[in-house]
Amino acid sequence: MSDDLQHLGFLGFDVFGTVVDWRTGVARAAEPFLRRHGIDADPLAFADAWRALYQPSMEAVRSGARPWVRLDVLNRENLAQVLASHGVAPGAIPAAELAELNRAWERLDPWPDAVEGLTRLKRRFGIGPISNGHIAGMLNLARFGGLPWDMILGAEIARNYKPVPDTYLKSVEAVGLAPDRVGMVAAHNNDLKAARALGLRTIFVRRPREHGPGQGSDLQAEQDWDLVADDLLEVAQRLGCT
Amino acid sequence: MSDDLQHLGFLGFDVFGTVVDWRTGVARAAEPFLRRHGIDADPLAFADAWRALYQPSMEAVRSGARPWVRLDVLNRENLAQVLASHGVAPGAIPAAELAELNRAWERLDPWPDAVEGLTRLKRRFGIGPISNGHIAGMLNLARFGGLPWDMILGAEIARNYKPVPDTYLKSVEAVGLAPDRVGMVAAHNNDLKAARALGLRTIFVRRPREHGPGQGSDLQAEQDWDLVADDLLEVAQRLGCT
Repeated sequence: MSDDLQHLGFLGFDVFGTVVDWRTGVARAAEPFLRRHGIDADPLAFADAWRALYQPSMEAVRSGARPWVRLDVLNRENLAQVLASHGVAPGAIPAAELAELNRAWERLDPWPDAVEGLTRLKRRFGIGPISNGHIAGMLNLARFGGLPWDMILGAEIARNYKPVPDTYLKSVEAVGLAPDRVGMVAAHNNDLKAARALGLRTIFVRRPREHGPGQGSDLQAEQDWDLVADDLLEVAQRLGCT
Repeated sequence: MSDDLQHLGFLGFDVFGTVVDWRTGVARAAEPFLRRHGIDADPLAFADAWRALYQPSMEAVRSGARPWVRLDVLNRENLAQVLASHGVAPGAIPAAELAELNRAWERLDPWPDAVEGLTRLKRRFGIGPISNGHIAGMLNLARFGGLPWDMILGAEIARNYKPVPDTYLKSVEAVGLAPDRVGMVAAHNNDLKAARALGLRTIFVRRPREHGPGQGSDLQAEQDWDLVADDLLEVAQRLGCT
């Protein structure tokens, strides 16, 4: 195990893309919905279009232009927007059905290595999301996929979205450790860049299919992160968790 | 299983006394400390004296006389006070040693039924502390004793102490359920009384030895709680979790 990481006490995880496969999960939920309403869209492209609104919608909160709202609220608004872009009139689909589709974000399959990798890591480290997801969503996702978190940290604890520093710092404070005893695990270089700037340790997991076969970003580590691995089983093995 | 409780989605647990045995755990940590410093006190009586300062110290926060502070801070102050009452001068014992003794509250054995009871309940319900303990303390306690929480709620989420309503309401809000879909599990009638007034369901677990053989309070259910049981295995069985 890397000497630098010997002293870690807690591992915080990005979740969407790093631990769970949001793209095929959202597409799976969207497929019957699109068919039922005669919306002419490929389910995977629909998932991509919905996800494309994720960062801009959080940016309104990060910038202070909008007070704190949870991710389920943003996802629901973004769904209305992506439906509008497919020619669906506001109010054309019952609210309960939209709420149900919105819960697709709480029913996403873990990547195949995730549950076993987390289970091994948990033997040695405290583990929990430091995600932009809200607490109830993270809880439902964990129960859906069997993710063995000790605790749920992240955006709702801090009432702000990554990569705003408070999101990491309030999570670190909640577990009662110095930043350099917390490892941030993510498939996104920007997430790790923000975490490193605050003193956290950084673990990059390659997820080259998060955005499908044509993915163009985060294919490689863009800095000398403290650890770089191909999946969470490799992270566990490199950190001495067998 | 009780019809009333069929629709529960999450069970919130009082922890100190309900899930873990704080008295013998604190006494176990205090015993070598007292001996080393020549403090003439029975370790169990010392634990009781320390614990007796718990409610008054939280009351300062509840009443608004003092801004929010976490339970580890209160416990540490209370330790200084209980030592003073045993004739130990301030500064006579190194701060690091006091901090170490204070961590006794994070190394408490679960009651013998607790881990298996929680494990069974988790198959059907989301589970987590709605405790006055702070997040890091609850996390350490869970890792020490193998408590399989999905999530840690309670005082630090709400920045106030039970039985102030916000402590329950912000915990319920975080899991995204209506209050009547959350069950409060506690060995203390007052805790359940506060939870019931806010619409939560109530589950009383008898812990007649929490305060040792001479316990005079909370020996019986004082209202018709939705469920009354002798331990968490019975709660699991009564809620249909096998």
